[in-house]
Amino acid sequence: MEVVDQVPLMNGGTGDTSYASNSLCQKKGISMTKPITDDAITNLYSSISPKSLVIADLGCSSVPNSLFVISELIKVVDELRQKLGHPSLEYQVLLNDLPGNDFNTIFKSLPSFQKKMSNQLGVGVCPIFISGVPGSFYGRLFPSKSLHFAHSSYSLHWLSQVPEQLENNEGNICVACTSPPIVLRAYHAQFQKDFSMFLRCRAEELVVGGRMVLSFLGRRSEDPSSKECCYIWELLALALNDLVSKGLIEEETMNSFNIPQYSPSLSEVKSEVLKEGSFSIDHLETFEVNWIARDSKLMMNSPDAFFDDGYNVAKCIRATVEPLLISHFGDAIIEEVFCRYREILSNCLSKETNNFISIIISVTKNG
Amino acid sequence: MEVVDQVPLMNGGTGDTSYASNSLCQKKGISMTKPITDDAITNLYSSISPKSLVIADLGCSSVPNSLFVISELIKVVDELRQKLGHPSLEYQVLLNDLPGNDFNTIFKSLPSFQKKMSNQLGVGVCPIFISGVPGSFYGRLFPSKSLHFAHSSYSLHWLSQVPEQLENNEGNICVACTSPPIVLRAYHAQFQKDFSMFLRCRAEELVVGGRMVLSFLGRRSEDPSSKECCYIWELLALALNDLVSKGLIEEETMNSFNIPQYSPSLSEVKSEVLKEGSFSIDHLETFEVNWIARDSKLMMNSPDAFFDDGYNVAKCIRATVEPLLISHFGDAIIEEVFCRYREILSNCLSKETNNFISIIISVTKNG
Repeated sequence: MEVVDQVPLMNGGTGDTSYASNSLCQKKGISMTKPITDDAITNLYSSISPKSLVIADLGCSSVPNSLFVISELIKVVDELRQKLGHPSLEYQVLLNDLPGNDFNTIFKSLPSFQKKMSNQLGVGVCPIFISGVPGSFYGRLFPSKSLHFAHSSYSLHWLSQVPEQLENNEGNICVACTSPPIVLRAYHAQFQKDFSMFLRCRAEELVVGGRMVLSFLGRRSEDPSSKECCYIWELLALALNDLVSKGLIEEETMNSFNIPQYSPSLSEVKSEVLKEGSFSIDHLETFEVNWIARDSKLMMNSPDAFFDDGYNVAKCIRATVEPLLISHFGDAIIEEVFCRYREILSNCLSKETNNFISIIISVTKNG
Repeated sequence: MEVVDQVPLMNGGTGDTSYASNSLCQKKGISMTKPITDDAITNLYSSISPKSLVIADLGCSSVPNSLFVISELIKVVDELRQKLGHPSLEYQVLLNDLPGNDFNTIFKSLPSFQKKMSNQLGVGVCPIFISGVPGSFYGRLFPSKSLHFAHSSYSLHWLSQVPEQLENNEGNICVACTSPPIVLRAYHAQFQKDFSMFLRCRAEELVVGGRMVLSFLGRRSEDPSSKECCYIWELLALALNDLVSKGLIEEETMNSFNIPQYSPSLSEVKSEVLKEGSFSIDHLETFEVNWIARDSKLMMNSPDAFFDDGYNVAKCIRATVEPLLISHFGDAIIEEVFCRYREILSNCLSKETNNFISIIISVTKNG
């Protein structure tokens, strides 16, 4: 399965859109989720067979990977409808991200994408109608009962905002092993509020029998401060704290910085879906992706950079949180932060193996 | 009627999006077309009363005026539905322009637009769902029978391409009084091809009873080379030819430059609508807007610039054709071209009054 090189690691709630160049995390994520996504769209088409199929990508960012997932979905449906002897159907693709996302870049790539799809699908296939829908997916985005399939890849771990009541999280920038219970509860409460709102909005927008496949960063442990989800941010906090001790960052400025990110457990996700009540769960599981998943193509082109794992992971995380850091700390210390972060990561990666935990959930809208 | 200052004069087929700062032409256009647009949307809602109303703006550009027209349309419908005692309906707004348009700018303005609309419409009104649809309106943009109302303001005089067979249009850059008949026929044929394609596509997309209101530059005379539509371009050609005689532009380069713009007559427009056959004409008329329509607010802020009519008209035209000129002649001579154009315009405007002729047509999709 060909997946393009420029891929987002996460986006959504950062206030800006954020990507991670050469992040193999999402590539791996797409490979892992493809069988589940294919299964969901196949079941959807088999049961509903709409004349016009409406697919949304929630948190599309501006890099070509979101179109890659869309193209795979359309190919699956088009093969199926041919097998079933159905006439060609219209495809409508809704690309959503925050209003600050760079939609211009993705829009400019659409004519060549549409041409390529038209070549691949062959003659007699209806055009694919693509539009951009700017807005937060923690609110309504589409008209009622207008959507057949919603997909979101590595966006939903971003919260709509930094939780309130994080005064006691000094020295940390997210949930961490040293965070007091009140901080853990604040992050969890924000996740519950956001995720239930997300589900409520999508429940309004999806038709009965509509499907939704979501993948995002999560955790296997029930402990929200477990290393599997917090360590990557704890190491970034370490880099920032080093700059505090050097006098380059004010302690107060450091203490008031927190990232709107939460990695839920399977049971936390399941609980919100059951509480909301509009969806039945078809599939729910975790999988892991190594922080330093390697790309043979990249190794060929840039062997030095490739073997500097600290550099690669720092670059990937930088692409996702740089806007947040700049807006809080200013841009003068950014190089210094990521230089130190890279050293810390290199040191850590030489001693141990670390994985991102991903959650994938596939649901059907109840009647 | 408040209309914002930054407004497009024309856009659509220039390959790039183009705006005209402080152009009073389109402001006047919007005032003139408002009663017809209001009438069309009122009749639409009275006859169809959809639960979810889908409105498209074709050639929206990236400046706030397109949202202004949309907001007026929604206000008219919402007043009417209240008067009729109907429940609140969902509004879906589709903003279309070429993929090269700056959608980012308009998307960033949407949260404040939506908030303003929500305040104006009051409590209990459904959200307005806004999306961007990149693509040429000379092709399909939306799913079949998905649209209730389409609106286009000062875009449809742009052709999809420069017509072929313009070899004999030396010294001119568009249809001109010295253009030979073959050039006039080529431009007219391109208009027929484009406008009929536009009508065919919209006929697929609009529901039965759906409405469309289009305004664009046109002419009153049956002569396609009449001064009312050609003179503005003839004066720009004069500026370019001056640079040819100074040796700053190669004669060959000048002779191979033509603008993809056509100002049809009422009968040419009517003829295409009747030939296509899907629409009945509710309203078709021309109106005129002075080249130098004046703005009292602008006069207060910048009296010197205001009284330099040549400067204002040159600036307005520059904003619409600069991308075309740069891509053909390079950017080195652009300042010189518009400096000379301004002189020519100032001289001309001191001696005579000139008007743009606009056409407005309102149609209903037949059953």
